[in-house]
Amino acid sequence: MNFESKLSEVSKRIKSSIIRELLKVANNPGMISFGGGVPDPDTFPRNKLAEISKEILENEHRFVLQYGTTEGDVELKKGYINLLKKYDGIDWVKDENMVITVGSQQALYLVGMTLLDKNSYCGVSRPIYLGAASAFSQRAPKFINIPLTKDGLDLEYLERELEKLYEIGEIDKFKFVYAISNFHNPGGVTMNLEKRKKLVELAEKYDFLIVEDDPYGALRFEGNKVPSIYSLAPNRTILLNTFSKVLAPGLRLGVIIGDEFLIRKITMTKQAADLCSPSLTQRLAARYIQRYDLYDEIAPTIKLYGEKKDTMMKAIEENLGDIKDIDWTRPEGGLFTWITLPKGIDTMEMFEMAKMEKVLYIPGEAFYVDEPDRNTMRISFCLPSHEEIHEGMRRLRRVIDKYAKEKGIEI
Amino acid sequence: MNFESKLSEVSKRIKSSIIRELLKVANNPGMISFGGGVPDPDTFPRNKLAEISKEILENEHRFVLQYGTTEGDVELKKGYINLLKKYDGIDWVKDENMVITVGSQQALYLVGMTLLDKNSYCGVSRPIYLGAASAFSQRAPKFINIPLTKDGLDLEYLERELEKLYEIGEIDKFKFVYAISNFHNPGGVTMNLEKRKKLVELAEKYDFLIVEDDPYGALRFEGNKVPSIYSLAPNRTILLNTFSKVLAPGLRLGVIIGDEFLIRKITMTKQAADLCSPSLTQRLAARYIQRYDLYDEIAPTIKLYGEKKDTMMKAIEENLGDIKDIDWTRPEGGLFTWITLPKGIDTMEMFEMAKMEKVLYIPGEAFYVDEPDRNTMRISFCLPSHEEIHEGMRRLRRVIDKYAKEKGIEI
Repeated sequence: MNFESKLSEVSKRIKSSIIRELLKVANNPGMISFGGGVPDPDTFPRNKLAEISKEILENEHRFVLQYGTTEGDVELKKGYINLLKKYDGIDWVKDENMVITVGSQQALYLVGMTLLDKNSYCGVSRPIYLGAASAFSQRAPKFINIPLTKDGLDLEYLERELEKLYEIGEIDKFKFVYAISNFHNPGGVTMNLEKRKKLVELAEKYDFLIVEDDPYGALRFEGNKVPSIYSLAPNRTILLNTFSKVLAPGLRLGVIIGDEFLIRKITMTKQAADLCSPSLTQRLAARYIQRYDLYDEIAPTIKLYGEKKDTMMKAIEENLGDIKDIDWTRPEGGLFTWITLPKGIDTMEMFEMAKMEKVLYIPGEAFYVDEPDRNTMRISFCLPSHEEIHEGMRRLRRVIDKYAKEKGIEI
Repeated sequence: MNFESKLSEVSKRIKSSIIRELLKVANNPGMISFGGGVPDPDTFPRNKLAEISKEILENEHRFVLQYGTTEGDVELKKGYINLLKKYDGIDWVKDENMVITVGSQQALYLVGMTLLDKNSYCGVSRPIYLGAASAFSQRAPKFINIPLTKDGLDLEYLERELEKLYEIGEIDKFKFVYAISNFHNPGGVTMNLEKRKKLVELAEKYDFLIVEDDPYGALRFEGNKVPSIYSLAPNRTILLNTFSKVLAPGLRLGVIIGDEFLIRKITMTKQAADLCSPSLTQRLAARYIQRYDLYDEIAPTIKLYGEKKDTMMKAIEENLGDIKDIDWTRPEGGLFTWITLPKGIDTMEMFEMAKMEKVLYIPGEAFYVDEPDRNTMRISFCLPSHEEIHEGMRRLRRVIDKYAKEKGIEI
């Protein structure tokens, strides 16, 4: 039978993640990958988690093996509320302000499904985090692509777009601005405090929500922590976070924090989507953060990432620094830097050469929902060794030279 | 701010599960609940799972704590493929025909999101499983409510509706029929072989898909196993199953089996929804079914449920048998029976009296997406003890007598 004709409109258009496809060669022998943003599994506290999991399966089986509530494990919520108090000075969050999700991907998805329609608008960064684009696209809304600058979203651009919507009487269909406030993926940049305040002002003036996604905030190597947008405007900000970067991605634990009414609605969407998250993984994380200081535990990992970031900055400077018009971001945390190469270089087309030189990156075009800047790439520094970072960048330079020569692009 | 105005159309309409609300009193002292369909947690193999979880966290941490593929753990797929061979004689299923989901609720949800649009039609049983209704409703399709009879869906009714759609040129918008083939929730009935074959004929004639949901099939106490619809028409059937009833619901593991193209599309929807299921719970189940014979392990549980079903049938006969026009289903497996009381009795209204008499059931109106038959109720027999089943039915009779008397309904 013709299955295509049976698909929903969205499913007819949906494409699989380019990254997935590109990274299939990541494990080929000799390959150096700056592609994936996955943490090093050897940094996960496997023995502590093994102990706890045995314990809770034996002693708390009536909870961990049974259906849970859609809202999530109250023990995990309690632990997370304590972290918010201790590390962010946020002391007003209650159980009713929080729902536990299957990773922050589900958090993004539930927010999109709960707030967006086909005729809705949402503001996103340009470039945008791929997972957010695919999550929001399930409702096929209209994206307003806000250029990402070194200190966050270009709010002048946003304000002009909001004014246009206001003038054509569509402003009420503008639902939210989606912002990765710290160490943006893929951009590597952090929104400064002035812009966070300005964004809140705009949200109040034009009456929209802010969806603040902060998966990397805990991974700061240097510089000073900036107050979260949520802490500036808890009444109109939905805060998304995850345990994937600070504990282990395989547990698939994310969290949505916000106004009680919105959380209730998001919870109903989750009820339809999967009824509840696994009780076992939730209680496992709950007991872990009860017993250990999550941030003390990951401090060595953060130090490691910070050193690799320094090495990466050095390696880029040394190997690519002299390329005409080249630009790259200098992250104070997180996992990524974003490189912009001279116009005319198509990093997707160049990818084949990179594969042959055994170095991988993510072509920038994976991170746009409009016409992409094809001369960009995302570089991750968390997994390769210091030596691999230097060697990978030497290879990348060879690739760029070869490609530019073939195309007659002057670099 | 006015959050309501920021919600998607679907979220404005969505309601929380009635069952959830009703069962909040289930744990009150002295309460006998025929409400929830949850298995007894003491039947879960907690010590075996504790052993395995410790093992895999220590020895397979690079897998169980890391992101997995959206399709799911190949080890779990391998184990499930073996079960299909061993117990259903289905020997053609490959990895590409299968995606692992976060419980069968997510399976239902992904199927709905991948196949349905607002202008689509789907055929569902009347009464319908609540979880399926809420999952499919996320795309707000048009439901064709097919009456459920003692031997499954009323296919004459379905055929008449299909003819109507054909005549008005809408038949191509009819996407699938959703059928719980064994021990229907809430109906308790099983679709006989003739009807399964007839449904396949209709699917071929009118070119639609069949979504076969079989969470209870393994819980057969008596009678002979009926070949699955999927085994009759693998080319146009999507088979949904879950480990919740045969292993443990807290692991949230479901599976979707079907044509490779559809599975790929469903996988892309899952990629947007949550990226991947937890690696830990998947590998835990994989090692368990590798090491133990799943069905040998649950045989005692099935025997237990079967005995409770017999007790329930006896208790209904003894306590309600003489009520005028009363009818109830006699399940050969699963967890539920469906009672139809005399016209005029509103089981939702009667629920308050039941609470006072300390006996709980699920009012039938929770299981309709059209005007409900208010004189129905779902009764679960898996959790209460034999004594509680008898006492609970005595209490229910008192409730019915009291309610009928007040309303002047002759029973």
